[in-house]
Amino acid sequence: MSEFAPTERTRVKRLPKRGHYDRETVYGILDSAFVCHVGFSVDGQPYVIPTNYGRTGDTLYVHGSAASRLLKTLSGGVPVCVTVTHVDGLVLARSAFHHSVNYRSVVILGRARLVEEAAEKMEALRLFTEHVLKGRWHEVRQPSEQELKATTVLAIPLEEVSAKVRTGGPVDDEADYSLPVWAAVLPLETVAKEPVPDALRKNDPPLPDYLKSNSR
Amino acid sequence: MSEFAPTERTRVKRLPKRGHYDRETVYGILDSAFVCHVGFSVDGQPYVIPTNYGRTGDTLYVHGSAASRLLKTLSGGVPVCVTVTHVDGLVLARSAFHHSVNYRSVVILGRARLVEEAAEKMEALRLFTEHVLKGRWHEVRQPSEQELKATTVLAIPLEEVSAKVRTGGPVDDEADYSLPVWAAVLPLETVAKEPVPDALRKNDPPLPDYLKSNSR
Repeated sequence: MSEFAPTERTRVKRLPKRGHYDRETVYGILDSAFVCHVGFSVDGQPYVIPTNYGRTGDTLYVHGSAASRLLKTLSGGVPVCVTVTHVDGLVLARSAFHHSVNYRSVVILGRARLVEEAAEKMEALRLFTEHVLKGRWHEVRQPSEQELKATTVLAIPLEEVSAKVRTGGPVDDEADYSLPVWAAVLPLETVAKEPVPDALRKNDPPLPDYLKSNSR
Repeated sequence: MSEFAPTERTRVKRLPKRGHYDRETVYGILDSAFVCHVGFSVDGQPYVIPTNYGRTGDTLYVHGSAASRLLKTLSGGVPVCVTVTHVDGLVLARSAFHHSVNYRSVVILGRARLVEEAAEKMEALRLFTEHVLKGRWHEVRQPSEQELKATTVLAIPLEEVSAKVRTGGPVDDEADYSLPVWAAVLPLETVAKEPVPDALRKNDPPLPDYLKSNSR
């Protein structure tokens, strides 16, 4: 897969070796998180709102009620930033100063486009559901005409995009390596626990296969 | 603990029962995450950057290199938004439309203040380290004069703050409850795995107690 062209705004400058611009890295980070943080400004005040999303190719979709501030503002085509972050570990160095976090993040700059065409909108809804849990879309009741109308879907192009990744152990000052301080990485992982069946169920089929082997 | 006064900008309007303004809820969400997302604008373009933080009372601290865009911009006292989000579960409803996510988030609006007084700056650095891992500060090498100078610390007051929380199972349309669709919550949890000792260690003491019982 090819690379996104870094711009003046997306090139990682201060720690350049942490910057990544290839689609494989960017897609991998986007496709394995559940929530993105969307940044936009209203009357000079920035807002950062967590929300679900879906992706296909170089398009990221977000959705919500047309009445929400997020969707109302973004529908106007204002500049937006979408950030997705994984926290992979705590980096415990020998000095307070060199403590750090292992992480993978993607930052997308651009403007949102209101999705009006019915087929693209339905495909975006499929992507949202499949992003939550792969295999789910074909089992659930599909969106009605009315639900489609109540949902605003926005497309954000992956054009001005960069990823930033920190991996590995602590990087201490040379003199500190001999200090009697326990240094390590404490890996963090998000795990799915035992599903909690809905108490109001009346007609449940057996547990679907895609839930038996959910590892994300 | 008392409540934050919701403002026109922080009151949760569309799903008001998800809004929380009490300090207990807000502090609980802030104190159990590792990364916040900071939103700010440069030349009309919003940026959302993940970063570490610490908190004491109604003050949140962020820090970094004085050369970073984040720190340079925020030092100017521009409007900022800081958001902290936990994803607690995937809500699998019987219809695609009612799929959701259980989450807890805090949104802070305000302006940052540059921390210049040495004692407050040192206390903020202590908070960062203790936020990563409680008990760590007293074991590691403390910041030197030079490291203090190289670090910019910003204080963001918790004044205009709200939390938003979704818990519980799917809420389906009445007619959908009899559909043969497996409905549930899939709880998600961030767990710490076995620590990975630094390969370059020379003088490690035994594993500290605070690492034996880390449950966050």
